[in-house]
Amino acid sequence: MSAPQPTLVLHHLERSRSTRILWALEELGLTYTMKTHKRHPKTMRAGPEIKKIHPVGRFPVLTADGVAYAESGSVLEFLADLPGGEALRPTDGEGLRQYRYWMHFAEGSLMGPLLVSLITSKLSGKDVPFFIRPIAAQIGRTVDKSYTWPQLGDLLPFVESTLASQPWIAGDSLTMADIQMSYAVQASLSRVPGAEKYTAMKAWVDRIEARPAYKKAIEVGGPALLA
Amino acid sequence: MSAPQPTLVLHHLERSRSTRILWALEELGLTYTMKTHKRHPKTMRAGPEIKKIHPVGRFPVLTADGVAYAESGSVLEFLADLPGGEALRPTDGEGLRQYRYWMHFAEGSLMGPLLVSLITSKLSGKDVPFFIRPIAAQIGRTVDKSYTWPQLGDLLPFVESTLASQPWIAGDSLTMADIQMSYAVQASLSRVPGAEKYTAMKAWVDRIEARPAYKKAIEVGGPALLA
Repeated sequence: MSAPQPTLVLHHLERSRSTRILWALEELGLTYTMKTHKRHPKTMRAGPEIKKIHPVGRFPVLTADGVAYAESGSVLEFLADLPGGEALRPTDGEGLRQYRYWMHFAEGSLMGPLLVSLITSKLSGKDVPFFIRPIAAQIGRTVDKSYTWPQLGDLLPFVESTLASQPWIAGDSLTMADIQMSYAVQASLSRVPGAEKYTAMKAWVDRIEARPAYKKAIEVGGPALLA
Repeated sequence: MSAPQPTLVLHHLERSRSTRILWALEELGLTYTMKTHKRHPKTMRAGPEIKKIHPVGRFPVLTADGVAYAESGSVLEFLADLPGGEALRPTDGEGLRQYRYWMHFAEGSLMGPLLVSLITSKLSGKDVPFFIRPIAAQIGRTVDKSYTWPQLGDLLPFVESTLASQPWIAGDSLTMADIQMSYAVQASLSRVPGAEKYTAMKAWVDRIEARPAYKKAIEVGGPALLA
């Protein structure tokens, strides 16, 4: 007999990486309560009240019997230890090697240049005073040309070739590594110039978005991407 | 009787995050061969030859009996499974919760704004044409003021309070999470204005740098930070 499921409360930020945790909860069929936090319409940031739940004040935070778990990768590893989670987590061999790689690649490699591209894109935006906007936009393009696009040009082809050779990121079945990778790949397809050539990535996102658990996550949590 | 140790070859990039893997290898007393890759004196990047070892072309790469492991967090998890590694990896309870959090926090939260600060600092550097340098520097300061420093101002106090309450990042003894966190904390102390107030972080780095295994890693691999 397995231990009873802990009482789970997900603190979800709309249009953010925390959609991944919602999807994982649905994929595992766990019972949970969700508290959705809104972004401020101008700053696009959430309010400070999440700091009462976890001191760093970032999303997602999942509490289990009142204990707070944060950092998406870490929350997914915690969920993989709950009943049913073993199906989403290889335990040894080549599957485990690939699983661990992608669990860390998502934030350790791929999110860095995506974050930079988000910041450089704002340099040509309406929040920049109009008299410096042309030069700010030019600086943004220079950073992207020398850093952002070359980095993504190294990283994304490996994601693409992996997904062209197997249906899921760590092998033949869906794992937490697919969930961990989903946001960064969705953001890449949406933001990176020329990303339409990554057809295997697109097909993988389509497979994800067709899953009932993913659909349910979007239904209750809203769209994953900011824009 | 435990399985024999695999043949390990570390592809190390000088002055980079790969110092962490070198330190872990020394901490575990494993036998390994090291291949040091140099940065180009102008671009500060390594050459493309590492792509023959791992397609993404990033450091570190550790091969074990010819199989390539990449992403520092993933390599550290692999090493924790080798003989002796269990001492550096909590297996359950509160220790495991903290361990997983920091294993992901290092790259998932802390490295993002540090990466941005590295890029903004270059906007006032000699590679920027002199006639746009003042405005580029101003843009860099604006990004730092609105994004980089507020982010780090949320993140670093939690690292500090954790290390003020316990000697190592996940509890009473050194774990792979300390190794994973080391580079980002060293970089924070070196780069973030006002970081001298983080005395518990500084004391933790001092404890790390006093360890024979860390000293050996620096002796054979060179300094950890770029500058």
